[in-house]
Amino acid sequence: MEPDESQLMLFPILILLINQASKMNAEDGVMEELASEKEAEESHRQDSVNLLTFILLLTLTILTIWLFKHRRVRFLHETGLAMIYGLLVGVILRYGIPATSYHKRTPPSCSLEEGPVSTLLLNVSGKFFEYTLKGEINSREIHNVEQNDMLRKVTFDPEVFFNILLPPIIFHAGYSLKKRHFFRNLGSIITYAFLGTAISCFVIGNLMYGVVKLMQFIGQLTNKFYYTDCLFFGAIVSATDPVTVLAIFNELHADVDLYALLFGESVMNDAVAIVLSSSIVAYQPAGASTHTFDATAFFKSVGVFLGIFSGSFAMGAITGVVTFTKLHCFPLLETALFFLMSWSTFLLAEACGFTGVVAVLFCGITQAHYTYNNLSEESTKRTKQLFEVLHFLAENFIFSYMGLALFTFQNHVFSPIFIAGAFLAIFIGRASNIYPLSFLLNLGRRHKIRGNLQHMMMFAGLRGAMAFALAIRDTATYARQMTFTTTLLIVFFTVWVFGGGTTPMLSWLHIRLDRCVVDPDQDLQQCGDNFLLFQGDGTMPEVSKTKQESAWLFRLWYTFDHNYLKPMLTHSGPPLTTTLPSCCGPLARCLTSPQAYENHEQLRDDDSDLILNDGDLALTYDDMAIRAKGASSGGADAGGWGVNGKRSSSTSEEALEREMDQEFLSRSTRLVFPIEDHA
Amino acid sequence: MEPDESQLMLFPILILLINQASKMNAEDGVMEELASEKEAEESHRQDSVNLLTFILLLTLTILTIWLFKHRRVRFLHETGLAMIYGLLVGVILRYGIPATSYHKRTPPSCSLEEGPVSTLLLNVSGKFFEYTLKGEINSREIHNVEQNDMLRKVTFDPEVFFNILLPPIIFHAGYSLKKRHFFRNLGSIITYAFLGTAISCFVIGNLMYGVVKLMQFIGQLTNKFYYTDCLFFGAIVSATDPVTVLAIFNELHADVDLYALLFGESVMNDAVAIVLSSSIVAYQPAGASTHTFDATAFFKSVGVFLGIFSGSFAMGAITGVVTFTKLHCFPLLETALFFLMSWSTFLLAEACGFTGVVAVLFCGITQAHYTYNNLSEESTKRTKQLFEVLHFLAENFIFSYMGLALFTFQNHVFSPIFIAGAFLAIFIGRASNIYPLSFLLNLGRRHKIRGNLQHMMMFAGLRGAMAFALAIRDTATYARQMTFTTTLLIVFFTVWVFGGGTTPMLSWLHIRLDRCVVDPDQDLQQCGDNFLLFQGDGTMPEVSKTKQESAWLFRLWYTFDHNYLKPMLTHSGPPLTTTLPSCCGPLARCLTSPQAYENHEQLRDDDSDLILNDGDLALTYDDMAIRAKGASSGGADAGGWGVNGKRSSSTSEEALEREMDQEFLSRSTRLVFPIEDHA
Repeated sequence: MEPDESQLMLFPILILLINQASKMNAEDGVMEELASEKEAEESHRQDSVNLLTFILLLTLTILTIWLFKHRRVRFLHETGLAMIYGLLVGVILRYGIPATSYHKRTPPSCSLEEGPVSTLLLNVSGKFFEYTLKGEINSREIHNVEQNDMLRKVTFDPEVFFNILLPPIIFHAGYSLKKRHFFRNLGSIITYAFLGTAISCFVIGNLMYGVVKLMQFIGQLTNKFYYTDCLFFGAIVSATDPVTVLAIFNELHADVDLYALLFGESVMNDAVAIVLSSSIVAYQPAGASTHTFDATAFFKSVGVFLGIFSGSFAMGAITGVVTFTKLHCFPLLETALFFLMSWSTFLLAEACGFTGVVAVLFCGITQAHYTYNNLSEESTKRTKQLFEVLHFLAENFIFSYMGLALFTFQNHVFSPIFIAGAFLAIFIGRASNIYPLSFLLNLGRRHKIRGNLQHMMMFAGLRGAMAFALAIRDTATYARQMTFTTTLLIVFFTVWVFGGGTTPMLSWLHIRLDRCVVDPDQDLQQCGDNFLLFQGDGTMPEVSKTKQESAWLFRLWYTFDHNYLKPMLTHSGPPLTTTLPSCCGPLARCLTSPQAYENHEQLRDDDSDLILNDGDLALTYDDMAIRAKGASSGGADAGGWGVNGKRSSSTSEEALEREMDQEFLSRSTRLVFPIEDHA
Repeated sequence: MEPDESQLMLFPILILLINQASKMNAEDGVMEELASEKEAEESHRQDSVNLLTFILLLTLTILTIWLFKHRRVRFLHETGLAMIYGLLVGVILRYGIPATSYHKRTPPSCSLEEGPVSTLLLNVSGKFFEYTLKGEINSREIHNVEQNDMLRKVTFDPEVFFNILLPPIIFHAGYSLKKRHFFRNLGSIITYAFLGTAISCFVIGNLMYGVVKLMQFIGQLTNKFYYTDCLFFGAIVSATDPVTVLAIFNELHADVDLYALLFGESVMNDAVAIVLSSSIVAYQPAGASTHTFDATAFFKSVGVFLGIFSGSFAMGAITGVVTFTKLHCFPLLETALFFLMSWSTFLLAEACGFTGVVAVLFCGITQAHYTYNNLSEESTKRTKQLFEVLHFLAENFIFSYMGLALFTFQNHVFSPIFIAGAFLAIFIGRASNIYPLSFLLNLGRRHKIRGNLQHMMMFAGLRGAMAFALAIRDTATYARQMTFTTTLLIVFFTVWVFGGGTTPMLSWLHIRLDRCVVDPDQDLQQCGDNFLLFQGDGTMPEVSKTKQESAWLFRLWYTFDHNYLKPMLTHSGPPLTTTLPSCCGPLARCLTSPQAYENHEQLRDDDSDLILNDGDLALTYDDMAIRAKGASSGGADAGGWGVNGKRSSSTSEEALEREMDQEFLSRSTRLVFPIEDHA
């Protein structure tokens, strides 16, 4: 069956399901007197129906994505699509089900003197039943508790987002960050992510505080809305998620530096935003009485920020480094171990009071940098594919849930002034992040971030999964409910409008569409359809452009990493015996793995190894398999260059960079060049 | 770091964690007066610690498995190992933590006139808190509710096993069932699984009823234990799970027929046991007053059995067939869709009141048979690997949880007489399944199931994950608690003793160790280390042995499947235009996919396609890549045979079977033969 046909089939099934759900609710009312066991069974069935609704939504999304990819439709990304389908189902759930099917009953209540406890016993004529605390409910909500039972049931526990759906997304982002261009632009990325997000958070927070004051002045807001609430809003909407834009960049082969900057910034600023928001929450209790600015509390929360961030960073990096497998012969065990270690990083950080998501991000980056080299070839593919699927499913689930939440979430607070203010504030916040920082960075960068790239970065400030997850985590107070509603609308608007406008924007800004880009999934340079192996004899038009950027800090780190960390933690790189001073000989011999010697020898002797094409490449691009084979006649060149790169151990800048390229070549990644340049 | 070192490191971490857990509990006591929000945060942290404990247990298991595989240790399987580690941690949790750290407080209770409701409101000085029903608790348990809080927290909701852990295990079993030997022995497998499991269930149930009567007579049992409870026990311990035995068979290349019989039986009887147990539960309310045998109720539950089973079967088979992807260009989408469809089968069945696990099993079998052929090469690998990892993790998790549950489960009822009776009963039950049915089957089989194979099947009646999951699902009554404890002990005993004794038993029973076996994971025949392509010119020593078994029923099904279903549902097989009578021409053209014509053409013309070795084979067995390459010179033979197989469209038995083999060859599976036979 063609996907378009099956889509037509899926919709009736969805509607049937929704009817089924409403019918079961109607039955519920009749069966009130039946045993609780029966009720639990019904509830289980209802849960299945709800989950099934989401799964069919995802299926629908996948089929439509396929259709779009097939027809090369670019104005709507899969996440935008998932939101639309979510919205549709949300509308049906909200308005399509007759109101008569709801219970019109307030659940029984009982009184206690003491504070809420986690476990409560209920004595019904001698039989005891155990109840667990679900949460406080608003007094205006009491009569609605069971009334909108169904809508409540499709509402997930917000912790699900944090503990189940975000980790694979964030880990995948970190794990696929192994890109030369990312490390080349590391300084700029860190500046945008840390300084930029902080600026954005404070600008948005202060602007929103002005809006709130205005609203209170004109009597539009009677509930409490503190300064910390504004800052919290600033923190959560500062987490950008340009997934839509990046997908298009990738397809159109847009500027590699821009790609690296945007991807790197969005990955890192998620981490910053999450820690920032929790330090703002930590700041709150101190100023609980006033909720205004307090210098001590401010420095305390800066301390909390630094503590949580560095703690999570250290934990992630350490676990990433520890996952140092030698289970080469058993890819299944290796993959399972890899998965478990990533997950345990998350849990360990949470158990220690740090932020699991941040730890998982740095775990991913470290594993991509070190552990990836230790895995067997089979496992590198397996782990990548496993996390790719998990990431894909989690991301689309979150976005379709967002669409659903717009109609099924019970406590929306739509405030037009606040929303208008927020749209203005995020615009100004993003601008005061990008333009001033780009100016400062350009003072130090040899390869400047040009004006059109700055405009594109400004434009690509989409909000996504992270902002949503942070906003839905706490919707207890009026201020947080307003925050949630506004964040949701910001996500919708930016994903649809900015996401959809990427292609016209790129051409309007005259952004160079490179013929060669680093494909984020394949980790190889792709130039239209022509591939050729990297010659490296000086004719490096693309590489030389970006080469100039490697700042001294990065170079220092690179040297340390390449000479000491890599040999110690992986089987690649030069043996420690050659890089450490001779006095450390015994220690060096002890720390270097036997494979490192072998690899080193191999690098020096077995030149043909460098030009062997890997199976994956041949599999994906069948049409160029012969070409790649043909190119292996140029092996002597490539090999000669490899020897050259190894030989020139002088510390001159050029040699270092050439070695970097060579190392890049000796991994699973193969640099490829336009065939025209060669022919 | 070597795994053995890291194991030494992991144990202290585990102990630290457990201490941490106990400390946090101690803190809990002090913080009772603090806000419930703080308590929820602590509870979240505690959850992370608990989950982390399990993950480290799994990591430990993986590292030890690696060590065992590396050193070729065969007496202990990974599942047995997981149980041992689980036991150790259970002992530490139970006895290693000082009793002072527990609360000694009964939670507050309140009274209501009406029956238990799902949602309860608690009014604490004007603030309302929502509570949800967790379940009824025994009156003797009330004072323990918070006392053993920590032990309770490492106890999972039993539904987790059914809804999260079992589906991937069962699906993987179904998905990897695509074996020629399975279909050859289908009749025998179905007989053992359906008739055998029913016999076993009733024999064990009746024997246990005798034991219970005896216990009541001598005053060892004062609580209620009905006949249906005995039957329920019979049903759950009739689910065999010879995972340990099969792993060893696989490693030692034991008899292929025995492997197929055991694997097939265990997969199918899980489905039978689960439906049997739920029909027994359905039988219970009818005879609620007497709990004795009642003919009407019996036929009612037979009806329930047939209804649930056929419903689940139909649902699984239909969804399996519907997953008919053409998303060839996008393996990620294809894999995600495949995963979602399998999961939605489970949920759909649950939502309709059928058994999700059974539906997932048949979905897996159908998908392996039809959908697998439609997937792109990349996706076939991806889906296999994805489900392999999920299956591996879920299985080891269940087994390590079993070890833990022996010490941390709160309501164990150890009754020596019942346990001794149960061990005797499962032995008799297994014997009255295997021996009489084997005798009956041998009357019809041309290739007899010999005595030693029967003894081995008897010996391989291990109990595993399914029995455990069924037993833990309901531990509300005294009878069910006794059932759970006994089942747990049976699983421990059979996995360790029978699992460990497989290798000696095989040699003691003189069971033929085939030089060529079908590797269940690779789906190719492996003969020591030598591979050669199938010649098919009549010298088929192994194949001809098993060939004789294909019964008439199977042959009928095969013809129908090959001529009509396969061409309609997959892109392989002959086009319908050639198999349907000419009057159905237009219909046939409409139903046949364009690829089928192409494949058909290809089969006839492009002979070299048949002898191309697939990437997977070359990847896994590096040492034989050259050999396989060399063998391609024999391509003319193999191809010639392929044409031969296609040409002989007479309905003679021999031709049909040759075609089957040829079809087997034309898939991703390549038959390979000992090189000695050829040389």
